Amino acid sequence: MNVLVLHGPNLNLLGQREPDIYGKTTLGEIDSQLTKRAKELGMTVRCIQSNHEGVLIDALHDAIGWADGILINPGGFTHTSVALRDAIAATGIPTVEVHLSNVAARESFRRRSITAGVCAGQISGFGAHSYQLGLIGLKEVVGSRKSEENR
Amino acid sequence: MNVLVLHGPNLNLLGQREPDIYGKTTLGEIDSQLTKRAKELGMTVRCIQSNHEGVLIDALHDAIGWADGILINPGGFTHTSVALRDAIAATGIPTVEVHLSNVAARESFRRRSITAGVCAGQISGFGAHSYQLGLIGLKEVVGSRKSEENR
Amino acid sequence: MNVLVLHGPNLNLLGQREPDIYGKTTLGEIDSQLTKRAKELGMTVRCIQSNHEGVLIDALHDAIGWADGILINPGGFTHTSVALRDAIAATGIPTVEVHLSNVAARESFRRRSITAGVCAGQISGFGAHSYQLGLIGLKEVVGSRKSEENR
Amino acid sequence: MNVLVLHGPNLNLLGQREPDIYGKTTLGEIDSQLTKRAKELGMTVRCIQSNHEGVLIDALHDAIGWADGILINPGGFTHTSVALRDAIAATGIPTVEVHLSNVAARESFRRRSITAGVCAGQISGFGAHSYQLGLIGLKEVVGSRKSEENR
Amino acid sequence: MNVLVLHGPNLNLLGQREPDIYGKTTLGEIDSQLTKRAKELGMTVRCIQSNHEGVLIDALHDAIGWADGILINPGGFTHTSVALRDAIAATGIPTVEVHLSNVAARESFRRRSITAGVCAGQISGFGAHSYQLGLIGLKEVVGSRKSEENR
Amino acid sequence: MNVLVLHGPNLNLLGQREPDIYGKTTLGEIDSQLTKRAKELGMTVRCIQSNHEGVLIDALHDAIGWADGILINPGGFTHTSVALRDAIAATGIPTVEVHLSNVAARESFRRRSITAGVCAGQISGFGAHSYQLGLIGLKEVVGSRKSEENR
Amino acid sequence: MNVLVLHGPNLNLLGQREPDIYGKTTLGEIDSQLTKRAKELGMTVRCIQSNHEGVLIDALHDAIGWADGILINPGGFTHTSVALRDAIAATGIPTVEVHLSNVAARESFRRRSITAGVCAGQISGFGAHSYQLGLIGLKEVVGSRKSEENR
Amino acid sequence: MNVLVLHGPNLNLLGQREPDIYGKTTLGEIDSQLTKRAKELGMTVRCIQSNHEGVLIDALHDAIGWADGILINPGGFTHTSVALRDAIAATGIPTVEVHLSNVAARESFRRRSITAGVCAGQISGFGAHSYQLGLIGLKEVVGSRKSEENR
Amino acid sequence: MNVLVLHGPNLNLLGQREPDIYGKTTLGEIDSQLTKRAKELGMTVRCIQSNHEGVLIDALHDAIGWADGILINPGGFTHTSVALRDAIAATGIPTVEVHLSNVAARESFRRRSITAGVCAGQISGFGAHSYQLGLIGLKEVVGSRKSEENR
Amino acid sequence: MNVLVLHGPNLNLLGQREPDIYGKTTLGEIDSQLTKRAKELGMTVRCIQSNHEGVLIDALHDAIGWADGILINPGGFTHTSVALRDAIAATGIPTVEVHLSNVAARESFRRRSITAGVCAGQISGFGAHSYQLGLIGLKEVVGSRKSEENR
Amino acid sequence: MNVLVLHGPNLNLLGQREPDIYGKTTLGEIDSQLTKRAKELGMTVRCIQSNHEGVLIDALHDAIGWADGILINPGGFTHTSVALRDAIAATGIPTVEVHLSNVAARESFRRRSITAGVCAGQISGFGAHSYQLGLIGLKEVVGSRKSEENR
Amino acid sequence: MNVLVLHGPNLNLLGQREPDIYGKTTLGEIDSQLTKRAKELGMTVRCIQSNHEGVLIDALHDAIGWADGILINPGGFTHTSVALRDAIAATGIPTVEVHLSNVAARESFRRRSITAGVCAGQISGFGAHSYQLGLIGLKEVVGSRKSEENR
Repeated sequence: MNVLVLHGPNLNLLGQREPDIYGKTTLGEIDSQLTKRAKELGMTVRCIQSNHEGVLIDALHDAIGWADGILINPGGFTHTSVALRDAIAATGIPTVEVHLSNVAARESFRRRSITAGVCAGQISGFGAHSYQLGLIGLKEVVGSRKSEENR
Repeated sequence: MNVLVLHGPNLNLLGQREPDIYGKTTLGEIDSQLTKRAKELGMTVRCIQSNHEGVLIDALHDAIGWADGILINPGGFTHTSVALRDAIAATGIPTVEVHLSNVAARESFRRRSITAGVCAGQISGFGAHSYQLGLIGLKEVVGSRKSEENR
Repeated sequence: MNVLVLHGPNLNLLGQREPDIYGKTTLGEIDSQLTKRAKELGMTVRCIQSNHEGVLIDALHDAIGWADGILINPGGFTHTSVALRDAIAATGIPTVEVHLSNVAARESFRRRSITAGVCAGQISGFGAHSYQLGLIGLKEVVGSRKSEENR
Repeated sequence: MNVLVLHGPNLNLLGQREPDIYGKTTLGEIDSQLTKRAKELGMTVRCIQSNHEGVLIDALHDAIGWADGILINPGGFTHTSVALRDAIAATGIPTVEVHLSNVAARESFRRRSITAGVCAGQISGFGAHSYQLGLIGLKEVVGSRKSEENR
Repeated sequence: MNVLVLHGPNLNLLGQREPDIYGKTTLGEIDSQLTKRAKELGMTVRCIQSNHEGVLIDALHDAIGWADGILINPGGFTHTSVALRDAIAATGIPTVEVHLSNVAARESFRRRSITAGVCAGQISGFGAHSYQLGLIGLKEVVGSRKSEENR
Repeated sequence: MNVLVLHGPNLNLLGQREPDIYGKTTLGEIDSQLTKRAKELGMTVRCIQSNHEGVLIDALHDAIGWADGILINPGGFTHTSVALRDAIAATGIPTVEVHLSNVAARESFRRRSITAGVCAGQISGFGAHSYQLGLIGLKEVVGSRKSEENR
Repeated sequence: MNVLVLHGPNLNLLGQREPDIYGKTTLGEIDSQLTKRAKELGMTVRCIQSNHEGVLIDALHDAIGWADGILINPGGFTHTSVALRDAIAATGIPTVEVHLSNVAARESFRRRSITAGVCAGQISGFGAHSYQLGLIGLKEVVGSRKSEENR
Repeated sequence: MNVLVLHGPNLNLLGQREPDIYGKTTLGEIDSQLTKRAKELGMTVRCIQSNHEGVLIDALHDAIGWADGILINPGGFTHTSVALRDAIAATGIPTVEVHLSNVAARESFRRRSITAGVCAGQISGFGAHSYQLGLIGLKEVVGSRKSEENR
Repeated sequence: MNVLVLHGPNLNLLGQREPDIYGKTTLGEIDSQLTKRAKELGMTVRCIQSNHEGVLIDALHDAIGWADGILINPGGFTHTSVALRDAIAATGIPTVEVHLSNVAARESFRRRSITAGVCAGQISGFGAHSYQLGLIGLKEVVGSRKSEENR
Repeated sequence: MNVLVLHGPNLNLLGQREPDIYGKTTLGEIDSQLTKRAKELGMTVRCIQSNHEGVLIDALHDAIGWADGILINPGGFTHTSVALRDAIAATGIPTVEVHLSNVAARESFRRRSITAGVCAGQISGFGAHSYQLGLIGLKEVVGSRKSEENR
Repeated sequence: MNVLVLHGPNLNLLGQREPDIYGKTTLGEIDSQLTKRAKELGMTVRCIQSNHEGVLIDALHDAIGWADGILINPGGFTHTSVALRDAIAATGIPTVEVHLSNVAARESFRRRSITAGVCAGQISGFGAHSYQLGLIGLKEVVGSRKSEENR
Repeated sequence: MNVLVLHGPNLNLLGQREPDIYGKTTLGEIDSQLTKRAKELGMTVRCIQSNHEGVLIDALHDAIGWADGILINPGGFTHTSVALRDAIAATGIPTVEVHLSNVAARESFRRRSITAGVCAGQISGFGAHSYQLGLIGLKEVVGSRKSEENR
């Protein structure tokens, strides 16, 4: 089972940027943890970060035919990008949206997610751990879809 | 580590009520799974379900001094109950909000959560599995708060 | 054919409370009239009134397996209770919503019904007579659903 | 007791048009049923259908001095016509508004009724049967107003 | 100087309909007063009333080439008709909008005028006298436009 | 019959300020025209202009016991001043609101009048002539109120 | 293949009315061009214009059984008529909505189309040419629906 | 003079729950202070707290025939409960609404009170002292109503 | 302990203006009552009324260094004046806002208070007595702030 | 006559992605059809697709001095990109916006087009054929602008 | 080149009032700095502060014929005063609006400026230095307008 | 002191694009002027323009550790990009936002700035000169922050 892990804009600064909101773990550390955890769960992850909306859309398209699941933290694009939403829907691959902070407790413009409507589930507020929960949840979602198709 | 698991209104009907949205697992099965998983994680859970807003508030109050974490699915009260939100805040205990379905993809009045702002994190869309992810996430949250206090 | 008749908060005060809006008939008289009329129509009614949202939800749950139709006047909960709406939907039993006064001609917050979307029909403005019209209408709805299922 | 029955735009297509929403009964059949039922109730009905707002307003004006009650299904004008509302109010005749489908469960622009505020009551969701319930309800309304005036 | 006087829906009932809001003067009396006053001011009036939006639009079109000014009370269409607004604009003839009652002190849906934006001026709240003030005002508007064109 | 004529902020600049919107007539000329016209109508006017909200409120209070009617152009305060609205209501004197331009055809924030709800009528769009129409209309309003009181 | 061409209110004035917005072509010329173009495409058109909403609805009803496609410019009714929308839906005939001007670049109340939701497509901004594009597009839509049904 | 004192949800936690907002005084202390102060003012108080909306409504109903005034802090129900508002109105007893904190300076959803519209007055922001001011104010309100009735 | 009592626009008319809303007590009587009550409580009051927003702001500024508390009824400015709000905040003096009528039960534009957010508390609905309750409450607020500072 | 054809994000997946909404024609096929059709019409097309907003803006800038018309399907950027709107306006080249599906009948966030206000016309709902209609329409628009400039 | 510097309500308290928002510089110091800086730039300034909206409007009127530019900090009136906006527009003199704090990062009601629409430019967030930047900017604006007129 | 100057989308067309709104100065000229002015002020500037949101975010990240201040004109991204806002906040470097035109006087969607809330100040409406004022203001902001840190 292959998983594409997509990190949106500004997440390359993790650990440096506003650590009281986003924590002290760096993106490199998150990717290492995910790779290790994936191995334990019998999964393979490929991790990509970009500040460019188009690069993220391209990466989603490239996942077609290869990835069984997608784990995405769309960062600031969560609240504004219809194009990203359309790209997730276009892949037809089960997708889980994660956020480091509890967006429900922040500025009002962060409470609306445009992308969540085409995802299978959402996890937010557990810091770097949100990604790990997302990976476990994704395994469950992909598994139950496959067993449905086999029926 | 003790955890209060709170199920809001109509969740006693799980497995029966609109199974294409909420799945076929019953509440009893969810509670058994949580009890088992909790044991593996070194935690104890106490599970309560009620259709009465007041009963849920009392249960939250009673958790003070006993519970280290709260896992709550507030059901229909998620979107209307200021009293429940106040009760969660009043306990001062780390709380994780879970939903069976992906509320972001349903009716618009389900997209607003009044309770989420006073929780530590949110998980939705993984069916009965949302509770299990919530339990793991809650362990993480409680753990990191304790290590902060010990510093 | 069995019918659950549910009266929401404050309806126990009928006949006493603001009679120029709600009329002079008491709830006891309404229930007697309904029982009599039901007999004529070959139906049985069971009448419950409560000021407790949770009690109403329990009563709806208890109707499963017993009642063929529900006649409900949700009172003030009409405009605020997502939990009650979910409970009606969960029963899967045809439901008719009735109001004594013409809610469309009163304060604007009474014009929005949260429960109506999951009911089969609505009747309002005929005073105590709204219930009787509701009973006749309910018979029609249940009858046509049964004949559909028999096809 | 004389009753004007007014059918608004597109109702001439009943039985043909979107039968899963509006049922299979034709307007002719509804009018026959109403005539028959009226006779049983000691009432006389006169039925008019028009796709022209002005024709409906003229018919309402012509009812003054002749009709004791009005049964109206304003169709699409329900949600847009202040002129029709003013015409109903101008007649001073007790009016009941009926709808075939449960408008509360359809598109949001159908949930607002401009005309309902000047009617005595509303009935919706019972298919062709909504008219019959409306006729019974209208009899009740007219009767109770007359007995009030005689006091 | 020729003036078209247009009365919208329900104004044929003036004097009869809700006299505490609209006064006791009939439409016939208003037209007589206007004819007399017009004569004194050196103007000719042609008065038309209709409950049909289309008839009012036709009348506006027919005014092109004949009328120098238009005096209109659009009744309930004031708040809903974009087509009537377009028709007034299409004539290119100076138009004054009048209302019997002070619409600013009534229901909120009466406070928005769709037609006023393409009129030269508005007068409301003077009962039947609003028309006479409108006629005097219209003379002024037409006069000043003509003297502008002659420059 | 005595009339207080109140001009709100910036009207002292009439004739100078944006003449394509407000015309070339100065405030002095308007007051002279009003004085002359008032004489013809058997009325006396007293004219006050101020850019100060408090001065306008004081002038309204001072009119109690002396003035039979008030003609007011509240200028920019039309859209913002609850205090001015309260002052007009407090005098209990029939008041007519006038505007030089057709406010319905300008910026959206000019379309809402806070003061109009407590006036008897409104006139707008006739340039300096709006005042004269207002004076005639005010005579009518005061006259009909007096004849009502004498009954 | 037969096509009903429906022109809404004020379109009879085309060529005369505000030519900088709507162009200099008259409605007669548009109908001639459409007839000629239809012939080239192997289609027959029947053209109707009315300022009466009811006449347009009647024309839509009459098209049932005869027309294979409908080309409609609802004029001002585009933004206000639920009844017209219902009539289009009731015909079940593929419909294309056209506008002469680019409504997206005009007043905000013109940006909302009530009718578009039940049409197959929309074309706006090409002046008289919008109709011709609409005819070509309609042929495509009707053709592809027929080939679907034949499968 | 008898007074019912009603405390809404979460107020049983007073002194414990977020003391920087709600103060350190417990509910028991508030009730003792009120009992003492009532004695000085020649009044009797009966104090009830509940987290159940239905229990509060019952208590209001039970006050009919016994209580001369009601002092209520509806807590979180202030902002959502139409049922509680209806119950207050149904008693017909003068009611004063009090809040510990200055709700106008907190989250926006706390600024709207659904219950205040049917109360005689409101007091907020004085901590535990708000109740005492409420008691004095209530005495005034009840007194002036009684002297009105005696006239 | 010195208190500034500020009365906003139109309050000079108290006793005269709409007595069914505002009562029959004059402003002079209110000030006498306050002076007397203040003496009993060991306080001194200085009372100012103005219809001028600027005069009220100046009075607030002048209170700095002299007054220990402020009692204000901002009248119509309550709902519109950001400048008055800024002035109250600028003084840094504990302020209590009072209203004669229960503003929560009046026109919707009176339900929003711009000034309340920077006050310590609010009292409304007790007629002239609101001021007296405000004075007692203010003493409490000032006292508790002083004792906090002394700690 | 040279035309730039711009395809926005996710359109590279055409034929694959959600074929029930977007059809089975691939982007390559659309471009071939356009090239062929352009030849027949005496036009040349250059086709570019990108998922990157910046690439689309650059392409628009590069069109200055070379292209006579622009045909654009902005995809998801239609509803969110002010920068793209500014780029279209900056070119000063006549532009036609096309959509495959009838956006007026889909999710509400797709009903608002930010880019349409600076285009000449819009076509939507004809599947791949929307582009061909757009090309014909663009020819008309460019032709009529050129003939205007030559006058 | 002469410049009117206008300071709105509460700015007389600068240096004293909430120094963490507005800084420690007093208004006297700002005026001295502006006078000095103006001299260097070959300009003359006249500085006026008032808490009275009417005084500010009068000052704007008095500037006509004397001032070449206006520098204004409208304080709390920025967000509420249509009358002040009209006064700025009436002068026809280039005006620059300045704010000490970055209003975009404060309460939402401070984000809307009613006056900015009729100014040439806006500067906010630089503390007392905002005025100096405004003076330099104003010189530029006035200079470029003069050179335009000389062409 | 080093300054990053960032120009957003479409600004590369300055001098060409809609010169009546944006002026005739090219971006090259603006950069030259800034370089020269920076030298005079003892500052160094590095200027970057891009139509790509991601490139702008990358540039902001790269500024960390090198730049002391940022001058940004986000162009169309001002109103839509949460990602850009997050990037500015992430740098922790004082930032000034500038606009060529007075955005407050243009289309309503340009009046909201998403980025301004995390900037130190804003300058708009002075054409190319806005940048120069921004540079001076930025020097002030950076200077005062440094002197704060040194305390």
